[in-house]
Amino acid sequence: MMRPPPRRPLRPRGDQLEKKPIPPLAPGDIRIIPLGGVEEIGKNMTAIEMDGDIMVIDIGFAFPDENTPGVDFIIPDTTYLEANRARVKGVVITHGHLDHTGGISYVMPKIGNPPLYTRNLTALMIKKRQEEFPHLPPLDIIVVEKEERVKIGNFRVHFFGVTHTIPDSMGVIIETPYGRIVNPGDYKLDLDTVNGKPTEAEEKAYSIFDQGETLLLMADSTNIENPGFSPPESEVHKNLETIIKTVKGRLIIGMFASQFERIIKVLEIVERLGRKIVIEGRSMKTNVEVAQLAGMLKIKKETIVPVQEVDQYPPEKIVVLATGAQGEEFAALMRMATKQHKYFQFKKGDTVLLSSSIIPGNERTVQRLKDNIARQGAKIVHYRTSEVYIHSSGHGNRGEIEWLHRKIKPHFFIPIHGHHQKLHVHADLALELGMPEKNIVIPDNGMVIDITAKGTKMHALKETVSSRLVMVDGSGADNVKEVVIKDRVMLAQEGIFVIIAIINQQTGKVVKSPDIISRGFVYLKESQDLLHYVRLMVKRKIEDATSRMNPINFDYVKNILREEIGKYLYQKTHSRPLVLPVLIEV
Amino acid sequence: MMRPPPRRPLRPRGDQLEKKPIPPLAPGDIRIIPLGGVEEIGKNMTAIEMDGDIMVIDIGFAFPDENTPGVDFIIPDTTYLEANRARVKGVVITHGHLDHTGGISYVMPKIGNPPLYTRNLTALMIKKRQEEFPHLPPLDIIVVEKEERVKIGNFRVHFFGVTHTIPDSMGVIIETPYGRIVNPGDYKLDLDTVNGKPTEAEEKAYSIFDQGETLLLMADSTNIENPGFSPPESEVHKNLETIIKTVKGRLIIGMFASQFERIIKVLEIVERLGRKIVIEGRSMKTNVEVAQLAGMLKIKKETIVPVQEVDQYPPEKIVVLATGAQGEEFAALMRMATKQHKYFQFKKGDTVLLSSSIIPGNERTVQRLKDNIARQGAKIVHYRTSEVYIHSSGHGNRGEIEWLHRKIKPHFFIPIHGHHQKLHVHADLALELGMPEKNIVIPDNGMVIDITAKGTKMHALKETVSSRLVMVDGSGADNVKEVVIKDRVMLAQEGIFVIIAIINQQTGKVVKSPDIISRGFVYLKESQDLLHYVRLMVKRKIEDATSRMNPINFDYVKNILREEIGKYLYQKTHSRPLVLPVLIEV
Repeated sequence: MMRPPPRRPLRPRGDQLEKKPIPPLAPGDIRIIPLGGVEEIGKNMTAIEMDGDIMVIDIGFAFPDENTPGVDFIIPDTTYLEANRARVKGVVITHGHLDHTGGISYVMPKIGNPPLYTRNLTALMIKKRQEEFPHLPPLDIIVVEKEERVKIGNFRVHFFGVTHTIPDSMGVIIETPYGRIVNPGDYKLDLDTVNGKPTEAEEKAYSIFDQGETLLLMADSTNIENPGFSPPESEVHKNLETIIKTVKGRLIIGMFASQFERIIKVLEIVERLGRKIVIEGRSMKTNVEVAQLAGMLKIKKETIVPVQEVDQYPPEKIVVLATGAQGEEFAALMRMATKQHKYFQFKKGDTVLLSSSIIPGNERTVQRLKDNIARQGAKIVHYRTSEVYIHSSGHGNRGEIEWLHRKIKPHFFIPIHGHHQKLHVHADLALELGMPEKNIVIPDNGMVIDITAKGTKMHALKETVSSRLVMVDGSGADNVKEVVIKDRVMLAQEGIFVIIAIINQQTGKVVKSPDIISRGFVYLKESQDLLHYVRLMVKRKIEDATSRMNPINFDYVKNILREEIGKYLYQKTHSRPLVLPVLIEV
Repeated sequence: MMRPPPRRPLRPRGDQLEKKPIPPLAPGDIRIIPLGGVEEIGKNMTAIEMDGDIMVIDIGFAFPDENTPGVDFIIPDTTYLEANRARVKGVVITHGHLDHTGGISYVMPKIGNPPLYTRNLTALMIKKRQEEFPHLPPLDIIVVEKEERVKIGNFRVHFFGVTHTIPDSMGVIIETPYGRIVNPGDYKLDLDTVNGKPTEAEEKAYSIFDQGETLLLMADSTNIENPGFSPPESEVHKNLETIIKTVKGRLIIGMFASQFERIIKVLEIVERLGRKIVIEGRSMKTNVEVAQLAGMLKIKKETIVPVQEVDQYPPEKIVVLATGAQGEEFAALMRMATKQHKYFQFKKGDTVLLSSSIIPGNERTVQRLKDNIARQGAKIVHYRTSEVYIHSSGHGNRGEIEWLHRKIKPHFFIPIHGHHQKLHVHADLALELGMPEKNIVIPDNGMVIDITAKGTKMHALKETVSSRLVMVDGSGADNVKEVVIKDRVMLAQEGIFVIIAIINQQTGKVVKSPDIISRGFVYLKESQDLLHYVRLMVKRKIEDATSRMNPINFDYVKNILREEIGKYLYQKTHSRPLVLPVLIEV
């Protein structure tokens, strides 16, 4: 049993509320402004302000959903930073995933292209992506190492290495007179699989928190509802090796291109076992290139073979690594599954391993992918039916999150990264661990949170900064307007009905029969009676209206048509297409 | 990290292939035609043909998805049955859920309104729904009891009771000279919670299969990928009772109106504990009414109180039972969560219990519901974070499915009910249990499967019956055309761009500047330069074309405009709106 999905965003956006100017920050106070990532998964970005300077952590993007059709992605609203660009002294990027880097190319020029601090692999990935924007000024990237210390304006900042699914992930520490501000970025714990505790290396990375005070923790809430600890990535690697060794027939592995470490591991395993691998999907190929460039992947050239040669190897000698495990329409796996791939077709005996979880909202497309693959006779192994772990999230579960809170013992806490409800659950965890409620703020995008009174008080201002949906479309312009998107959502539901009438200016009479153009409403070929009657009605309504009118008030006539024809169409079809009258005088 | 969802259906539909007539069925052979429910969840319907007669099991509907915007629901394609309506002798409905009954009102008149056999509660529910279609001829419903035997044309049919989430669920048995054909409908096993085996009553219900041969089993594949046995509904009831007893503050329970047994149980518990209950949501109210009508629910009138009085009771004395646990836009829970409910607002101290799983595809809307509820300060308990079972599916898990196969020991097997890949997994289970591959057919909608040679052979014909998407819209008409839906999907992605030019028939010159109407493409107010240039281009392209033309070939000119303007718009915006030129001669 199913229910139809709702369609429209259900909370009034910040921009629809009246804006008051943000009061200036008193010297010595600290201001935190989450600009993205606290009401959604993706577009993570936080601004921090102190002593007149502003710094930024992460500039990600989010993918669109059913409320934003035809949009390529959504970036944070940086109106506030644009207005204060002279004070933006730098940006820190915690790691190379697009939900932390995807907005860089769009946002950086708007905020004055300040220096960007990040580790080596992340820097390489950002540069690679920036190649797609040759018209932009070059980024001023400063490569840092974990535990390095830098000054960003007045901010004293240092870093610490964290475990995630991509190398060179780091957390950020800002030193303030009242203690540290900590944002670990995306993290999980590398558990010692024997005793189930964090490894020694992990304990060491976090040992900086054994001394000193932490004023504020801002931390990821993505997997707060998953109990216990997340399975270690090393276990996934071990299981993948076993599967590659033992599977009969060809093995096709689908995974995110962002699973950087796992990709490297699979390539190493394949080479060690003397097999060949085909890499399919542009982002996957790019990331393999970057991994080699960064010196993180060293394999023989001939281990990777082009897809054209896939049939030249015995089935058990070949592994295919492909993007598209989320059922994306144009990604490698879906093209293979729908027989639209030029060189690769599934066949009986193939095993498809989906080494990924399903991103909420993608269930139907993943099911379509599985259906199409099953139809070709290939076997499917996915994380829900596999008996061993073939995927593990890069985000820590509740166990890891709790471990972090206990380790860092912050005075204040702001949950970030995730849907709003997850932030509430994360806040409840902090309460359970003994933090007083007044020390926690659950943020919205655009909320302004001030730490005052020498670091003893934290509160959210009633004033907020702009937090519109900033949408980027195919042209790369980030000015897709909400009204355009609203029209799209409406067109998709009921279609459009354009009425074109030519009116003689002198007589007010309609010249010729009105034209009607309609799409997405009813099947016109089978609706000739309806159209015929609408034409008559249009002519009559116009002439009734204009007979008492000189000069003709065209807006008035259009309104009458919109209303009356709309009403008639609804009576006849129970649809409310967008009715657009076009009146032309001759 | 996310990826954008794909948009278009990816398998060519049956109707796009050339149709050959279905060969007639030889006497003594049996024909099975799955008409719905084998490539999706929902719209379950199967036709069975033998000795000239046809009978049907279930007529359900499915809800639309992102590929069918603006559609209310989708029903099975019954073209084949309509052409053979004189031979359709009867319909059996296994239980009262809409994925098994929702198509009745649309399909029955088209197939000659044959007698409909079902049990009492299902009959009441079907009649209740039929009240919404007062223009239709009355249904000829014959109420049967489990274990009753009836003749439907030449078919000898009897039934057996099964456990599902709604009372009066039944399986169907058709006796043939070669053994039984069995379709258990939707079922799970009522496990004895002590020893984890089916209860005695359950063993008894299935004892009919201890003797005699089963020729063919057609069985549900919905939960084939869930390991083990599903938790018994009785355990969910026990847990709900504990929660109702112990929760502090108001308790709001969200669940499907289709969870008939659970609704009855909650009402009984509430009354027993001396509390009051508010029922919110039209379908929930209807089902409570029907349950009382059927004598399945006997509670005092005053136990149910209207929502207007919710604040007159102490928080711990009131339970609210509401529809909308899937985040449906206009359902009770979402209206409460978005403060659009006239009489009910969430407040701190409330607990919201979502006694349901999330239907694949609804994850984003459910997350939005949770976000909105969390924002009002209420606590949320859902099946993934609850420590005890607060929901159990009505569909058996793999353990139950395996039990059924072992109990029934069919000769042939056709997996039904579920996405195509699940059917493959179900077929694999049958193989594992020892069935030869040649005895299994994995069906598509519209596939024609014949059992021949005195019940010793089963095969799918290469000919298929029509299996289009039959879409029902708000007006109740089931003639929404695929081309209209395709237009909607396209309009949603790129918008529409209408060009209106008036051409002087004699000179071929454009009279006045062309008009442009566009929606869902770009923000016109900020695109004046683009529009200006397009107007000039339209005028020039038309006059270039018509200068060498007498009479004017309007289709030719329109094609040029569509192509050239489309190309220009893509260059400038990277969007491909639907370009519609309208040329008017004067």
